[in-house]
Amino acid sequence: MSDSQGSRREARPDGRRAPARPRVTIADVAALAGVSVGTASKALNNRGKLRAETRSRVADAARQLGFRPNEMARSLLSGRSFTVGLLTTDHVGRFSLPVLLGAEDALGAGEISVFLCDTRGDAIRERHHLQALASRRVDGIIVAGRRTDPRPPLRQFLDVPVVYAMAPSQSAQDLSVAPDEAQGAREAVRHLIAAGRSRIAHITGPARHHSSQVRAAAFRRTLAEAGLAPAAGKVLYGEWNEPWGRQAVQHVLHADPRCDAVFCGSDQIARGAADSLREVGRTVPGDIALAGFDNWDVMATACRPPLTTVDMALGELGRAAAVRLLEAIDGRARSGVEYLPCRLVIRDST
Amino acid sequence: MSDSQGSRREARPDGRRAPARPRVTIADVAALAGVSVGTASKALNNRGKLRAETRSRVADAARQLGFRPNEMARSLLSGRSFTVGLLTTDHVGRFSLPVLLGAEDALGAGEISVFLCDTRGDAIRERHHLQALASRRVDGIIVAGRRTDPRPPLRQFLDVPVVYAMAPSQSAQDLSVAPDEAQGAREAVRHLIAAGRSRIAHITGPARHHSSQVRAAAFRRTLAEAGLAPAAGKVLYGEWNEPWGRQAVQHVLHADPRCDAVFCGSDQIARGAADSLREVGRTVPGDIALAGFDNWDVMATACRPPLTTVDMALGELGRAAAVRLLEAIDGRARSGVEYLPCRLVIRDST
Repeated sequence: MSDSQGSRREARPDGRRAPARPRVTIADVAALAGVSVGTASKALNNRGKLRAETRSRVADAARQLGFRPNEMARSLLSGRSFTVGLLTTDHVGRFSLPVLLGAEDALGAGEISVFLCDTRGDAIRERHHLQALASRRVDGIIVAGRRTDPRPPLRQFLDVPVVYAMAPSQSAQDLSVAPDEAQGAREAVRHLIAAGRSRIAHITGPARHHSSQVRAAAFRRTLAEAGLAPAAGKVLYGEWNEPWGRQAVQHVLHADPRCDAVFCGSDQIARGAADSLREVGRTVPGDIALAGFDNWDVMATACRPPLTTVDMALGELGRAAAVRLLEAIDGRARSGVEYLPCRLVIRDST
Repeated sequence: MSDSQGSRREARPDGRRAPARPRVTIADVAALAGVSVGTASKALNNRGKLRAETRSRVADAARQLGFRPNEMARSLLSGRSFTVGLLTTDHVGRFSLPVLLGAEDALGAGEISVFLCDTRGDAIRERHHLQALASRRVDGIIVAGRRTDPRPPLRQFLDVPVVYAMAPSQSAQDLSVAPDEAQGAREAVRHLIAAGRSRIAHITGPARHHSSQVRAAAFRRTLAEAGLAPAAGKVLYGEWNEPWGRQAVQHVLHADPRCDAVFCGSDQIARGAADSLREVGRTVPGDIALAGFDNWDVMATACRPPLTTVDMALGELGRAAAVRLLEAIDGRARSGVEYLPCRLVIRDST
């Protein structure tokens, strides 16, 4: 690399770098295979009617010469760019990152290159990125959100398929994939009930968040199906963080001293609750069983004891979004929201 | 969006979608501006000698018609694709994500689109991604690592500039940007000394990690400059996690009961230490001042008390890598490792 980098510094007067070695062209491939350039192009792009023997001779010649088709020229021929935009709609972090990487994994393995577009929750940046994706002629777009609150559809600058991941589109005609948070919450609560707990409290995030509402509704419904009522008489809404978990669990113990389990809306809340319970001398799971939501390794495994929690399988969600997008690009578009199952991960806290 | 998506489902027999509306071409722009297509192209690509008045007339016409230059055609003309590859060399997470997003921010704002290539630490995936980037004719590559251990240079498949971020290249002829961990550690230790502490311990990660070694060396040197020796007589190497922080701080208290400060190699270690100190009745910072490294918000602010810590300014690091890459693409390549300053964030633990 050092040699080529040295030569790179001597930019030619026209501002283009001198190529390190002569580039192999499709003409070279055609010559070696003994076919016309048009035939070589058809063979390499898998188009037109050719004999299998011809295709394989061209493929061998390409391999032998180390021919890399120029993707740009290929895309001008095929009308497809084999690129996809991965657009984030709010700040990328713990929740959207696994979705992005899952999508990149599914697409990259299929010869699609992925443009990363971080809008940072800014409408002007979103517009700018969509215009850039339009001028790049992307074949489709995945829109990944951080939360599961439904979002308005993208303002369309270009006529390509769009799949929404995590935060579903508000339009029923769009295709969205989202985690089945209700099913995840239901499994956690059923697990607590199956372990013999009957006075179960629920501490969760802000009441305005879709995730809080869906998980709380599933909590209430699952208790009711078992003939139980929420410990402390109600769901405790607050923040997604540890201080709220520490504070709320004290409130629960005060309101319902016989409480024997707490289902928390996030691992951070559960971790705060675990610390607080330990400090007042209540054992987990002996006195009180504890379950979280997210399976955020750094919280769930550092918790004392390690936390039973619901995993939203976000990498799978990203992969599913990519598969649906490829189907839509291929003319097989679906619509509506597809919910993907969550998985209960059982550790020592229950 | 619903209408266009509806029509999208009716794929044409050749597999291409019918365009939603006639596409504005450069010929339309040229006609409206009253110039030739060649002149319009020069004006829009900012090339050749043209009068300012002509350039502005073409720009006005393009704006008026909503003309979006086809980036692929533009790149075939200019020899540049205005794309950059963002290659991760190991698993993307808390450390590499801010670097990636900082780079995307700096490039995206400058009309460069960014290909995300997650190698997942797999040499075959890395090779596959580099080949894809070569066939996309990217103008340059940023290689982002998760740790600061120097890494072998990329096997070169293509002759474009490369900048290494976080994990510097082992070759002095490459350009790398990395956080100045020694300076960060020095500032933290000086801060503890300035607060009147004199028996300072250091608990850190695995001895084989570059970060552990650099931070520990700066710790020893800064103490020596102040005529001090490490509390507990040595640096305690272990893991980057909370259980190690909890365990190691007990060892420190046992070996050196008069220890009055602990500098931890990560926020997770510091958080474990804080929990353990509280449980044995030592106050922070009253009895023992505590400093971490990373400024990982979820650890540093949830810590009781909130943690003084070193911020590696990873977003800035990504931005700097992008700026250096643009310079190199422009023929102004540098070499060697550029160290960017860390920032001490002071909270209640000191």
